[in-house]
Amino acid sequence: MDLSEFQWQLDRPIRMKTAEFEREGRLKHCIFASQFDRPLLQKTCFIADMIRVLSRTREGSNKLRELLSHKRAMLYFAQPSTRTFLSFMAACQILGITCNEVRDPSLSSEVKKESPLDSIRMFSSYFDLIIMRSNITQFAECCAYLMNDLAQNSMRSVPIVNGGAGSNEHPTQALLDVYTIDRTFQFGQKEASSKSRIMDLRRKYSNLTHGLDNKIYAFCGDLGRGRTVRSLATVLSQYQNTTMVFVAPPDETLQLDSELRDHLISKNVQIYELDSLDAAINGVPILKQIDCLYMTRIQKEHDTPEMAASYQSLDLSHFKLTRDRVEQMKDYAPILHPFPRDSEEAEIPTEIDKDPRAMYFRQARNGMWARAALLLHICDGVDQLHTLYKEFYGVTAEESLVI
Amino acid sequence: MDLSEFQWQLDRPIRMKTAEFEREGRLKHCIFASQFDRPLLQKTCFIADMIRVLSRTREGSNKLRELLSHKRAMLYFAQPSTRTFLSFMAACQILGITCNEVRDPSLSSEVKKESPLDSIRMFSSYFDLIIMRSNITQFAECCAYLMNDLAQNSMRSVPIVNGGAGSNEHPTQALLDVYTIDRTFQFGQKEASSKSRIMDLRRKYSNLTHGLDNKIYAFCGDLGRGRTVRSLATVLSQYQNTTMVFVAPPDETLQLDSELRDHLISKNVQIYELDSLDAAINGVPILKQIDCLYMTRIQKEHDTPEMAASYQSLDLSHFKLTRDRVEQMKDYAPILHPFPRDSEEAEIPTEIDKDPRAMYFRQARNGMWARAALLLHICDGVDQLHTLYKEFYGVTAEESLVI
Amino acid sequence: MDLSEFQWQLDRPIRMKTAEFEREGRLKHCIFASQFDRPLLQKTCFIADMIRVLSRTREGSNKLRELLSHKRAMLYFAQPSTRTFLSFMAACQILGITCNEVRDPSLSSEVKKESPLDSIRMFSSYFDLIIMRSNITQFAECCAYLMNDLAQNSMRSVPIVNGGAGSNEHPTQALLDVYTIDRTFQFGQKEASSKSRIMDLRRKYSNLTHGLDNKIYAFCGDLGRGRTVRSLATVLSQYQNTTMVFVAPPDETLQLDSELRDHLISKNVQIYELDSLDAAINGVPILKQIDCLYMTRIQKEHDTPEMAASYQSLDLSHFKLTRDRVEQMKDYAPILHPFPRDSEEAEIPTEIDKDPRAMYFRQARNGMWARAALLLHICDGVDQLHTLYKEFYGVTAEESLVI
Repeated sequence: MDLSEFQWQLDRPIRMKTAEFEREGRLKHCIFASQFDRPLLQKTCFIADMIRVLSRTREGSNKLRELLSHKRAMLYFAQPSTRTFLSFMAACQILGITCNEVRDPSLSSEVKKESPLDSIRMFSSYFDLIIMRSNITQFAECCAYLMNDLAQNSMRSVPIVNGGAGSNEHPTQALLDVYTIDRTFQFGQKEASSKSRIMDLRRKYSNLTHGLDNKIYAFCGDLGRGRTVRSLATVLSQYQNTTMVFVAPPDETLQLDSELRDHLISKNVQIYELDSLDAAINGVPILKQIDCLYMTRIQKEHDTPEMAASYQSLDLSHFKLTRDRVEQMKDYAPILHPFPRDSEEAEIPTEIDKDPRAMYFRQARNGMWARAALLLHICDGVDQLHTLYKEFYGVTAEESLVI
Repeated sequence: MDLSEFQWQLDRPIRMKTAEFEREGRLKHCIFASQFDRPLLQKTCFIADMIRVLSRTREGSNKLRELLSHKRAMLYFAQPSTRTFLSFMAACQILGITCNEVRDPSLSSEVKKESPLDSIRMFSSYFDLIIMRSNITQFAECCAYLMNDLAQNSMRSVPIVNGGAGSNEHPTQALLDVYTIDRTFQFGQKEASSKSRIMDLRRKYSNLTHGLDNKIYAFCGDLGRGRTVRSLATVLSQYQNTTMVFVAPPDETLQLDSELRDHLISKNVQIYELDSLDAAINGVPILKQIDCLYMTRIQKEHDTPEMAASYQSLDLSHFKLTRDRVEQMKDYAPILHPFPRDSEEAEIPTEIDKDPRAMYFRQARNGMWARAALLLHICDGVDQLHTLYKEFYGVTAEESLVI
Repeated sequence: MDLSEFQWQLDRPIRMKTAEFEREGRLKHCIFASQFDRPLLQKTCFIADMIRVLSRTREGSNKLRELLSHKRAMLYFAQPSTRTFLSFMAACQILGITCNEVRDPSLSSEVKKESPLDSIRMFSSYFDLIIMRSNITQFAECCAYLMNDLAQNSMRSVPIVNGGAGSNEHPTQALLDVYTIDRTFQFGQKEASSKSRIMDLRRKYSNLTHGLDNKIYAFCGDLGRGRTVRSLATVLSQYQNTTMVFVAPPDETLQLDSELRDHLISKNVQIYELDSLDAAINGVPILKQIDCLYMTRIQKEHDTPEMAASYQSLDLSHFKLTRDRVEQMKDYAPILHPFPRDSEEAEIPTEIDKDPRAMYFRQARNGMWARAALLLHICDGVDQLHTLYKEFYGVTAEESLVI
């Protein structure tokens, strides 16, 4: 694919890029995880909460589907992904967006030598929003430039949402991960129906605070190739007094890459790189110290034959959960995983699934709420959501959801 | 696929299983044809009638789509099936359920070694109902156990509907078959707009009664491998004074299997096994005696090379309809076929299609109503349907649909 | 596929056929481009304008989706086509029609030797409208006969819309092409919001008139194999004082076929056949004379090896646009292309895209409106659209859209 016409734009620093993807404090396109600054994360999590609460009743979910019922979306997933695809589908459906999909490029006009950019512009002719996953790393970014260019020429232009491009960026995964962690670290205070658990927890963990600041986050597994780790660590680096523990096999491909390491250090994140879940810091096992554990799958499908041979000698048991390891963790510390997990390697065995700290299935469902929140934000429907919430409950979301 | 964790549940008698798939007299999951007892069949046929009548007008169909507009379904069809798939799609759409589909497992996370049960749980995270077809015989049953297990742990759980699993069960096909036969054997009495034909018919067929009791059912073709025959015969065995005639080629694979035979006998069904549609019982050709003829296709795609060789010697003409054969049948006796029919073998030649006894296309359409009725029952929307019907017509369904 | 039972119908003159596809001045089925006579084209373009205008607001688009919300469509595209497929999807969605699709015939019952006509009848059992593309030239036509036959026997029958059959007919492409040209040649007069440009244009082009009469249309590229050229030229031949310029490489396969040439001559169209976009008529370059330029892609995917070899010697540069060539064209003359364009051959280089005469992306969007208009016409929803328009704007469409 020839993206050379965008080269000068692609080569700029990221801050110059992200500025072009906003308008009046709102995202026009969602391309990079770094577009999610703290205020936007807070706002999006709050919208997600409102949507989640409203969708509990039949009447509420019917109202939600009126918010964007005039919109039609194209889900263009050239790279297979059932999970992300279905999550976006469900997110659209919650808001009443009509979905269309192109998943198998062999069905498309590309066999007739149509350029991918012509395909995107065709989609933008028919639909109001393009959610896309491509195996070309910067394709979604270029599509956003194309749309901006059209808008500048007063031509039809629609928002682009990056559903995971190549091996680099998966911004909505970072969003849903943060939303899941944020919900956990509210300790129930956000919802009128439940009482905050934090007073109970503080008896055991005296320094515990609400929210994402002041936490120790551990990442375990394939940290080099997992774009979810890169995106999430980048987003979490914005929070105060953050420590990150990276637990990966002793193989360069699988470990934290230097670019991300440098970035985290520049943001004052305290970093530890270890080679086992049983490792200790200052004599205390990390499992007893961490506030959150983010597990990942070894992505063998990306192995070259040389890598595969080299991994044979690795003992992967250090990077898997067991009942014993989970027992050591703090009572409240969530276990996340971007899924799918590997049923053969079993980095998280199914026996952990019923542990109250296992958040990975809830995390999937949260992805739906978080993506719906993002889409509503991009399509400028948030004011209407607030109006709807107030009409529905008689109080504003601010009054009812947060203390 | 490793389903061993469910082995103890799979090995139980069917009555112990079906009890777990109900709750307060309502199906939680639809897995087996034997879940359809007479009261449930009667109820479901009645709901199907109400839906069918309401959908005739634009306003009625708009109202129907409000019944379950807050629900999102996953249609997970790992085994290809256009017909059943589209029928369920249409059924969902009639009730306003938003549909999502996974049809090609190669697109799914299974390439990343995700376990099928993780996939199902992912679906249950995003959607409110899972309709599934698998080539693994007991997979849908295991999914129902997984969901029950989640519910017992106060975790999110959704209904499972079996759209045909392996070679064994196809419960909704039995439901639609019964619905079609039931509608035929009402002889028009159910609808205010039409007068019952039974008085006219009784001049010629003096012992004719309404409903599914006291009837002779014939099944013809591939009775050994057709799961529709197994499911339907099982369901029909509940009716009083039932005779079944099985007409199959003289090859064990194609004939009534002993398990089903034993079951039918235990239910006091009178059974005849014959080798031609021209065969006679007590000197009278069966075609003149039967009340209903259920044709099936020889499922050659399941043939081993040995079978294919052995069938070469079979004369299949004994198991095909002709104009002459249809002429002998009773005026009212419906001809059913689960479809697709084989356009080369032509077990039902197209020249029969205009015969008033040819019910196979109407049967397909009835499948849509019957499946919609089942989904509404499972999703607990039947009371609302009754309310809607009353509001719409000013009379209850009981008053207007049945004498 | 055996369509012999329809042979006597297929062999009739086209006028005898089209009469059967109408009912009370309305199309029952849309199979041939020649069904679009001038009154129907005018009417459909007008409906398309109304839909387009109403869809601009959220409230308007919500109202539009009520028009056919009680309808379910099957999009049966056995031949791959992302563009036409998505355009029909979007058209359905605009009107609230629920869409279903079968795109990969290998998923369908055809593997079980179901006849294609049985598949169509299955679709007609579940859905209210069938939009189809087949690689069998006359299959859509036969499906329309099947439906008419069912209707005559008082059986369920639904409209068939041809989305492009084999190499012959693509009627809705002709419709959208005409709609795009018609909109251009209104010069803005149709919409109250914009002033007609025609007075300004007449200073330079003194004989310019509104509408499709009195125009010179040029077609360039693969004229022999492009069904869109055939369909559009046929439809445009109905207009008064029409000249057509056909610019194709000197190879019989790529040039105007004799059947179409004879037809156009019989309709008094003045024809020129040339071998370069730089050719002149009466000493004046054609690019300076034409009112509309219809570009097409050389359809290499249909080449036999012999053809491919023979084309090697052709200089295709005569059949491509350049900035210089576009500069010569009249200020208002639209450039159309049915798309996809060939990104390698670049018969229209992307540098042309921002020229105000480049209509090919707007043409794609117009396809959506034109197809929505056709579907609404076929489904008998036009009166309701007029009512809706009047309620919405307080004036009729006739008062507000046309002077």
